Amino acid sequence: MKIKKPISDAVVRRMPRYYRCLKELERAGVKRVSSTTISEILNITASQVRQDFSNFGEFGQQGYGYDLVYLKAQIRAILGLDKEYGVVIVGGGHIGLALANYEKYSREGFRILAVFDVKFDHIKAPRGVEILHIDEFEKFVEENKVDICAITTQKETALSIAEKAKECGISAIWNFAPIDIHEDDNTVVENLNLNESLFTLCYKLNAKELEEV
Amino acid sequence: MKIKKPISDAVVRRMPRYYRCLKELERAGVKRVSSTTISEILNITASQVRQDFSNFGEFGQQGYGYDLVYLKAQIRAILGLDKEYGVVIVGGGHIGLALANYEKYSREGFRILAVFDVKFDHIKAPRGVEILHIDEFEKFVEENKVDICAITTQKETALSIAEKAKECGISAIWNFAPIDIHEDDNTVVENLNLNESLFTLCYKLNAKELEEV
Repeated sequence: MKIKKPISDAVVRRMPRYYRCLKELERAGVKRVSSTTISEILNITASQVRQDFSNFGEFGQQGYGYDLVYLKAQIRAILGLDKEYGVVIVGGGHIGLALANYEKYSREGFRILAVFDVKFDHIKAPRGVEILHIDEFEKFVEENKVDICAITTQKETALSIAEKAKECGISAIWNFAPIDIHEDDNTVVENLNLNESLFTLCYKLNAKELEEV
Repeated sequence: MKIKKPISDAVVRRMPRYYRCLKELERAGVKRVSSTTISEILNITASQVRQDFSNFGEFGQQGYGYDLVYLKAQIRAILGLDKEYGVVIVGGGHIGLALANYEKYSREGFRILAVFDVKFDHIKAPRGVEILHIDEFEKFVEENKVDICAITTQKETALSIAEKAKECGISAIWNFAPIDIHEDDNTVVENLNLNESLFTLCYKLNAKELEEV
């Protein structure tokens, strides 16, 4: 699949939601699905759904709805979920262990390979996940196919870990530390900042008051 | 502070980033700050910064930069961080405990009051945080000032917890379960879906290939 222009961040972030929605409809036994149904489940407009899909090609015929299995496979491919990814986690705190123990990732092709920390006697990880000292990071990455590095350390450590990951040639960083890690030509980054999410919620909670004129 | 129009989601989501940036600059001893400096730290354009701020009023004088303490206080108020919030967490898994144990929330006025679960012998929470059975949820919310309910359960449970929270009059839901909880007239919601974040990262990892025409 080839697309003609860079896709906006807003569209990109809706794609995983479409994928989740289609998986749920598939489990419910649905065979054909309309943009209207998808839009109602996700609380967006049907024209938005059609417009988003049209960025990536034609997935269905006007008036007939989409073939669910086909559409789901297309979106899966757009998200790159038809491939396998090796994942390492740096930081064995609660967030790191939440990621390490989330078995459903493996169904989508994410293989959690190892958790790195400086102290790790307390860390319990599922079978198959190595628990290693951070000093072994470079060696491990050299010897294994690591595509994604999840960083769940304090912010003070996060930047140096990100540098190390980039130097080792890891091409994707999933950052949970409360600091922005920037992308470069070789590395994509997704910053997931819990504080910022909480503060956004607070904004919404207070917005009615702010917006009364 | 009053604003004239609803602020777009993209702007809202940048406000916590500005706040974090200003806190860091304040720690570094900065007194006056330009939109250019902020833009460089956050990797956005200076005109975007000025435009975002202008939604909320005039925070500085052209050419002089912003008084950091004043600007930070304004953004803090915009985010509603000048108030206190009572927070309960439903789900005592890794994510729930990460939230319960993140002491820095208290500095911004978030008081974690309790963690609810159905099994809770294994849960270690900091002093002052009650660990309670989910059956005690309604009673607890009745007797305490609860503003925010964080949901960190499986998705099967999340919807019913959200309903319960809404019925109890909790006005903000911070949802980590992999399912969309929708807002209504009385309740604002922030859905933070780890899967979707990971899938977005994967999209970015594969986008170069997709976007080659």
